[in-house]
Amino acid sequence: MGTPIVTASPTSREHQVRSFLRTHDLQAWIAWRPDELVMLSGYFPFWGASLLLYFLDEEPVLFVPQIEPRDHIPTRLRVQEYPWGDLKCSDPYSALVSAVGDELAKARIEGQRVGMNPSASRISLPIQAAEQIPIPEAFAEQLSTLTAKPDAQRLAAFANLYLRKTREEIDAIRRANKVANVGLRVFFENLRPGITEAEVAAAVEFAIYRQIGHDGIFHSRGWAMVQSGPNSADAGRFNRSTGRRLENGDLVLIELATCVDGYWSDLTRTAAVGSPKPEVEEILAIVKEAQQAAVDGVRPGVSAAEVDTLARDKIAARGFSSFFTHHTGHHVGFRYHDPGFLILPGESAKLEPGMVITIEPGVYIRERGAGARIEDNLLVTKAGHEVLSRIEGSTLA
Amino acid sequence: MGTPIVTASPTSREHQVRSFLRTHDLQAWIAWRPDELVMLSGYFPFWGASLLLYFLDEEPVLFVPQIEPRDHIPTRLRVQEYPWGDLKCSDPYSALVSAVGDELAKARIEGQRVGMNPSASRISLPIQAAEQIPIPEAFAEQLSTLTAKPDAQRLAAFANLYLRKTREEIDAIRRANKVANVGLRVFFENLRPGITEAEVAAAVEFAIYRQIGHDGIFHSRGWAMVQSGPNSADAGRFNRSTGRRLENGDLVLIELATCVDGYWSDLTRTAAVGSPKPEVEEILAIVKEAQQAAVDGVRPGVSAAEVDTLARDKIAARGFSSFFTHHTGHHVGFRYHDPGFLILPGESAKLEPGMVITIEPGVYIRERGAGARIEDNLLVTKAGHEVLSRIEGSTLA
Repeated sequence: MGTPIVTASPTSREHQVRSFLRTHDLQAWIAWRPDELVMLSGYFPFWGASLLLYFLDEEPVLFVPQIEPRDHIPTRLRVQEYPWGDLKCSDPYSALVSAVGDELAKARIEGQRVGMNPSASRISLPIQAAEQIPIPEAFAEQLSTLTAKPDAQRLAAFANLYLRKTREEIDAIRRANKVANVGLRVFFENLRPGITEAEVAAAVEFAIYRQIGHDGIFHSRGWAMVQSGPNSADAGRFNRSTGRRLENGDLVLIELATCVDGYWSDLTRTAAVGSPKPEVEEILAIVKEAQQAAVDGVRPGVSAAEVDTLARDKIAARGFSSFFTHHTGHHVGFRYHDPGFLILPGESAKLEPGMVITIEPGVYIRERGAGARIEDNLLVTKAGHEVLSRIEGSTLA
Repeated sequence: MGTPIVTASPTSREHQVRSFLRTHDLQAWIAWRPDELVMLSGYFPFWGASLLLYFLDEEPVLFVPQIEPRDHIPTRLRVQEYPWGDLKCSDPYSALVSAVGDELAKARIEGQRVGMNPSASRISLPIQAAEQIPIPEAFAEQLSTLTAKPDAQRLAAFANLYLRKTREEIDAIRRANKVANVGLRVFFENLRPGITEAEVAAAVEFAIYRQIGHDGIFHSRGWAMVQSGPNSADAGRFNRSTGRRLENGDLVLIELATCVDGYWSDLTRTAAVGSPKPEVEEILAIVKEAQQAAVDGVRPGVSAAEVDTLARDKIAARGFSSFFTHHTGHHVGFRYHDPGFLILPGESAKLEPGMVITIEPGVYIRERGAGARIEDNLLVTKAGHEVLSRIEGSTLA
């Protein structure tokens, strides 16, 4: 993809992005989705209304609402504020479009050399996570006057930039998994008859949120969903917590999404309360075996389908094929679910060093009143893989 | 607006929606935003990928992912599942568009008589709140072949349906406020030197999440943001929790969004730790006075600007005009921030019975290292108003 360009201190992320831009004959990219901002610049927006103008040949410019916190913006970004949040401004987006246009004009870049993903679908949540604020369609239309027409092939190539994480990004995802493990420890400590699913889940989220301020963390939020006994049999279709009280003999499953400073972990654990019946314990045993088989098979050069098969065959060998109804994994890190190929039957895409994926087979049997899934986050390394999510103890608060 | 149509048991929400449809010569409305689904049908989606086909003359049809939980779908809705979540289906939306088209054909309704809001901007979060899944643009385009062209006037009229809540909706918003007050009690109980902002906020969210299963609640989630001492002076621009430890003499502000079964509360409280300096206490005293003045003025027939002025004048009288930088309030209930007019200077729209609004003046003074805001949720009644968010004690868990 051409030779590396000369910059003061190119990171491998910069190298990837600039190779993409050159390959597609682009001189700039406009990004506003929180996950795109994290990937392109390491900046995790607060409101979700920031916009990054990424140049092929210059340092990027970041446009932020005038009410955006400024203390976590990477220092190398030139920052311009625009009147989002100003009581007296009824149309801040017009001001933003105009400012973006000015920067492009100053750099003498024409619209057909500027790329952008206008879609608001499946964006990561920003720090302010209680209400989604995708930049409105009318604004996207205004912006489209400054950019090339969306091109499916180019957008697919852009999405591929999510796939190979850099060393710094891997460290950030490792930290998200470290925090998630603090939550998982609370999960295991709270499993006892009489406690409700929601109480367990709430305790896990509590443990994750309070990590803010420790270890340099400025944002930490978990979404924990706990399903017990018969409810665990639903966990292949959806994950939520109810008021059901745990009982002796239950399987209890936790699905846990964790976001730390803009980087995501996606984990699942299943544990037994007391002594389940043999036909319930069997489900957990099969899932453990299938998950470990797929984990063991993760290395560069194997296809997604091959990894999927490692888990699916173990489950099929016990006669439970029809109870494993979902994929074996997906990419993770910039979002709860990153774009990119899934680990599922028939997928020929191959694993490469730097990819971070989940491995999460599950078996859910309504007739036995039980379901189980185990999910880890794995880094594909040159030598094979590193499980980022199995952490003994923790130095966090 | 015509005479009420005859149905077995019309609710006033049905009446409002059908009046809207008749006025705009529509025979059906297609809704998918979680807040629209709650408003039109009382159904709060899990995945956020459900679609409601609301007819003028027939009972609605609800299309849900095949992996959607079914236990909280109102029984009067006809339910059809579509293959969202099916491992073997790569394009579930085409199946959905086709099913919607079939229903419209069966009812002999032409595209120009079908309305829809295609925007994905500022939608409420569904139950699965860790990742936003707006129905993708490609799907919206496919759907547009079944609907009339978006019409700004019609969309504005549709948004007006959010403004006047029914008795059942008010009860649901009251319940969200009751749960939020459980969280606020935990906030006040935890204010002590040495605890971090994030620890206080995490404890509040814990208290809210664990209400699931009590009082018939199936979903309860809070987003608490706590700012103390100098950080409280930022609270007019953004709300977040940091690792700062509370100190004697701090003002501590909590911004709290709460969603219970799809209905929202939006509250703020500010309290002092120990004994603040007089110039800090003054800020809280002014805000209390201004907030109460605006609350007292809420009644049918007054304009938004008049209510705003009641708060703003009190603050101006103490010379702090420039430190009250935001609106005095907004509509609330189906979202953290409902659509509709704001309570701010120059807004001539008038309050009407059934509206639910926030009243939330604030003063934030960096030089004094302190900020304060107090926010309640008020129902406009024929006689004046009812404050939904001031609740003594609670019977919840």
